[in-house]
Amino acid sequence: MPEYRAPLEDFTFLLQDWLSVDKHYHQLDLQGFDGELAQEVVSAGAKFAQDVVAPLNQPGDEIGCSLQEGKVKTPPGFAQAYQEYVANGWNAMLGPEEYDGQGLPYTMAVPVHEMLNSANLSWRLTTMLTESAVLAVNRHASEWLKETYLPKLVSGEWTGTMNLTEPQAGTDLALLSTKAIPKDDGSYAITGSKIFITGGDHDWTSNIVHMVLARLPDAPAGVKGISLFLVPKYLLDAHGQPGPHNAVSVGSIEHKMGIKASPTCVMNFDDATGWLIGEENQGLSCMFTMMNDARFQVGIQGLGAAQASFQGALDYAQERLQSRAPQGPAKPDAKADPIVYQPDVARMLLTQQSLTEGCRALSLLYAKHMDIAHFGSDKDKHQSQQVVEFLTPVCKAFFTDMGLETTSLGIQVFGGHGYIREWGMEQLMRDVRITQLYEGTNGIQATDLIGRKLVRDQGEKLNTTFAVFSDLVTAIEDPTAQASAQTVLQNWHRTSLACLDMPSAELAGAAYDYLAYTAYSLLSVCWSSMADVAARSDNKALSTSKHQCAHFFNTRILPRAEAHLTAMKCDLPTPQAYTANE
Amino acid sequence: MPEYRAPLEDFTFLLQDWLSVDKHYHQLDLQGFDGELAQEVVSAGAKFAQDVVAPLNQPGDEIGCSLQEGKVKTPPGFAQAYQEYVANGWNAMLGPEEYDGQGLPYTMAVPVHEMLNSANLSWRLTTMLTESAVLAVNRHASEWLKETYLPKLVSGEWTGTMNLTEPQAGTDLALLSTKAIPKDDGSYAITGSKIFITGGDHDWTSNIVHMVLARLPDAPAGVKGISLFLVPKYLLDAHGQPGPHNAVSVGSIEHKMGIKASPTCVMNFDDATGWLIGEENQGLSCMFTMMNDARFQVGIQGLGAAQASFQGALDYAQERLQSRAPQGPAKPDAKADPIVYQPDVARMLLTQQSLTEGCRALSLLYAKHMDIAHFGSDKDKHQSQQVVEFLTPVCKAFFTDMGLETTSLGIQVFGGHGYIREWGMEQLMRDVRITQLYEGTNGIQATDLIGRKLVRDQGEKLNTTFAVFSDLVTAIEDPTAQASAQTVLQNWHRTSLACLDMPSAELAGAAYDYLAYTAYSLLSVCWSSMADVAARSDNKALSTSKHQCAHFFNTRILPRAEAHLTAMKCDLPTPQAYTANE
Repeated sequence: MPEYRAPLEDFTFLLQDWLSVDKHYHQLDLQGFDGELAQEVVSAGAKFAQDVVAPLNQPGDEIGCSLQEGKVKTPPGFAQAYQEYVANGWNAMLGPEEYDGQGLPYTMAVPVHEMLNSANLSWRLTTMLTESAVLAVNRHASEWLKETYLPKLVSGEWTGTMNLTEPQAGTDLALLSTKAIPKDDGSYAITGSKIFITGGDHDWTSNIVHMVLARLPDAPAGVKGISLFLVPKYLLDAHGQPGPHNAVSVGSIEHKMGIKASPTCVMNFDDATGWLIGEENQGLSCMFTMMNDARFQVGIQGLGAAQASFQGALDYAQERLQSRAPQGPAKPDAKADPIVYQPDVARMLLTQQSLTEGCRALSLLYAKHMDIAHFGSDKDKHQSQQVVEFLTPVCKAFFTDMGLETTSLGIQVFGGHGYIREWGMEQLMRDVRITQLYEGTNGIQATDLIGRKLVRDQGEKLNTTFAVFSDLVTAIEDPTAQASAQTVLQNWHRTSLACLDMPSAELAGAAYDYLAYTAYSLLSVCWSSMADVAARSDNKALSTSKHQCAHFFNTRILPRAEAHLTAMKCDLPTPQAYTANE
Repeated sequence: MPEYRAPLEDFTFLLQDWLSVDKHYHQLDLQGFDGELAQEVVSAGAKFAQDVVAPLNQPGDEIGCSLQEGKVKTPPGFAQAYQEYVANGWNAMLGPEEYDGQGLPYTMAVPVHEMLNSANLSWRLTTMLTESAVLAVNRHASEWLKETYLPKLVSGEWTGTMNLTEPQAGTDLALLSTKAIPKDDGSYAITGSKIFITGGDHDWTSNIVHMVLARLPDAPAGVKGISLFLVPKYLLDAHGQPGPHNAVSVGSIEHKMGIKASPTCVMNFDDATGWLIGEENQGLSCMFTMMNDARFQVGIQGLGAAQASFQGALDYAQERLQSRAPQGPAKPDAKADPIVYQPDVARMLLTQQSLTEGCRALSLLYAKHMDIAHFGSDKDKHQSQQVVEFLTPVCKAFFTDMGLETTSLGIQVFGGHGYIREWGMEQLMRDVRITQLYEGTNGIQATDLIGRKLVRDQGEKLNTTFAVFSDLVTAIEDPTAQASAQTVLQNWHRTSLACLDMPSAELAGAAYDYLAYTAYSLLSVCWSSMADVAARSDNKALSTSKHQCAHFFNTRILPRAEAHLTAMKCDLPTPQAYTANE
């Protein structure tokens, strides 16, 4: 397993030079927050990810989780690392201050999340969902529920889960059948079975708080009849401490391709006691508060895995001696040259790096708008919220597709050794494969982007997002680079506007290619902007690296955008052969 | 695990209608071979693959191989299936007739190989290498070695292996250090350690015949000092039966991402007795007889996995009810529509199908030229050999890259269930991932194509291959389709010719994109040709399917060719950041 080293130099460049967080926090009037604090948070997060979380990754994959007498046992060290995480306040980074959260800007938290994902995707997953649960409870639950549950979810004393999927209801939540019967005391009796529940049980905390979608007896059919409930593993006693076991049990845990150290549970609710979050029949919208956060976080998982794979591959390519470089011997005194001098190996590494660093830039631009959406003035809030909504499916789907591509390239750089478990490269690929599936498959993200985000408001979110990237383009000082970036961005904007009048079946057929086209176009703008800013940096090595990566991305990767653009314009019927024999 | 059903209808179309094997065998003057026999062989192979080999696939992955007291134990049923395979003569399909082989045309054997790979990649792997070993021994070994070993390798009574890689010598065989010391009796004492040896040991047969690369004491440095040796696990007694154990042992077996039922061994040779195959210091060229065959066969592994994944995904998409189709309800009486009606699911299935069937067509066109190279007149032989040499790296690299893409799409169609082991879709992806690595990584294939195959003879193999595809284009009856195919093919030819004068470092940088560009271009010609032939078929369902797939490929997949073309034209330096700190 390659030893993880956090990409601190890139974070520094992006936060300080590219996004100018000093100015950003000042504009948001965030007292006490500045670039220096951001550096401190990121550095401390790097240390925790490297020293505490990363060493558990490979053993966690080997040992996995088990179900013993109805209880999930996680691999050795996982619970202890979690307790250290909580004790150091990491779980509370983004938590609301009124419930003892730190209320940090996203621009400080997102780098920490990326590093935790690089270090150990399985371990990070449970903590991630707790943060998402905090958002849903904080925004939608009653004061009593908030006071009772939020402090412990914010601190991490308890964890949260997300219970949507049932065997017959995955993408299509209209089909879900878990029941909630109102009881006299204001609580509800929840009965049903949920599958694919991450962290449904574990041995980390004294309680687990499930967010469960269910139907009231008189609820309308379909998604308009779904309500959200809070169902704790242990009911609380008069002091708010875990008391009797609620009627919630783990049916089984799944055997998966990867993230083996993260328990994926079948959860059975058998007249379990729960409380309504938000209004009756408004459960889907409450759950989407949680889901949207989780979708971006899943994107960051893709990014984290990509970074881990890139640095593993680069180390190996610098050390592994095989053959001579075709451009002439690089190390004439050695028996062979390091493979990093092979142009095709350089191609693979540059693909990994330009995709990873491009996505990182986009993730922090997203985080900046999350900051504004939380802390900005009303007008700014609204605009940044639009940007975030537009970019959420892009980050989720593209970062995770990119995660698969880069982790596969990481294996490829290692040659046959990449396929052997002890080297750790194949685990990254197996682990990251889930990210294209959960929290809405990437196909669902694509239809979300083109349908709900682009077309539904007739391009309003699009135009706001376009304006944000136009500002990046305007700031590019090099006139040639500026003109190229302008062309890429305007072509994308024009193509997007042309989608507004497409019928919905055509939109659905174009969705995936539109998302990829969007991502490559926006990443190209980020790269041109980064290279331009880096050219003025004192750090000459970084400046050269950003210049070379931007050039590689814009000449070698960006042509894919054109292929997706061509593809999305073609009709896509469901072939007869697929529907003739069912 | 999806139940495997052989794509017999497609084989029939390709062999009878598209390649006209009746005429092909007649032209080669192959007495007793006709289209009907081809059908019989393929049908019988389908039955064996479906009924005997496929059911072992998932248990094989779960149980894997183990090393017990120095001996490899394969999963239950594997040895028995192999014995049935041998008893039914499958191992001897391509074997030379003078050693009791059947001398079948490749156009009959390749479909059987594809089906075995779809059924069980791990199981097929060992039998595949035996066939490659037969080729090397038959072409290069002494009469005595041939008479002693070939009959039993051809029948499959014994299996063969390929021992190239050492820890310090993978891609770069110049670095290999295994020693061979001549002994007085004409044999050699072989000493060294080899890694990644597929089927290095197993419990299937009474002997295993290792093909081992090693250096003679006075051998020149580098690849010009490598010789090939035959080293049996058991030395033979006076009757040619396995006698005393040779000094060959298994050091360990690897723990891998996939193909867990195929033993990958560390082999230790400790003064083991071996015999020279071919001339001294000509080992690399002898081994390449084996390697080139294995490279194409590995391509067929990618194809086999792709087919298995496609049909699993199609079945699931036809059964899984989720949401309504955006073009309007397809099954208004059901609670939801089958997901096959979702345009994005159709996109994934069409991508799988058009890539898989396109590669299958190319594999059988390749097989046709293998037939001619074996059985044709001297002039035809030479030309077909050129075509085969040109296409080998294309088939190996592109089919296996395509295998990864399609098996990943197969997971995606299944949603979260795709990630769960019991559904079998993730195994296909884990298993196929090795095919991009072994028998020369796909990067090595790309440099082989652009360097050895395209440039070395200044385009001679290219032009012969171009002529073959031009014939396909000329035969297209629909003038619009013909013109489009012509454009694609001529652009590719022109681009290829432009590579002839590129310096070698630039070639190496362009190699990967050139291979992908080549593959998409040639597959497009195959699709246009197939759709045109299918239009005249009595099988209307097949005719419609081929028409829709060809349209999909040429509008949705072919644009990738353009992206690779643009990318390959760009310079590719090794970035300073990669070489500064080693």
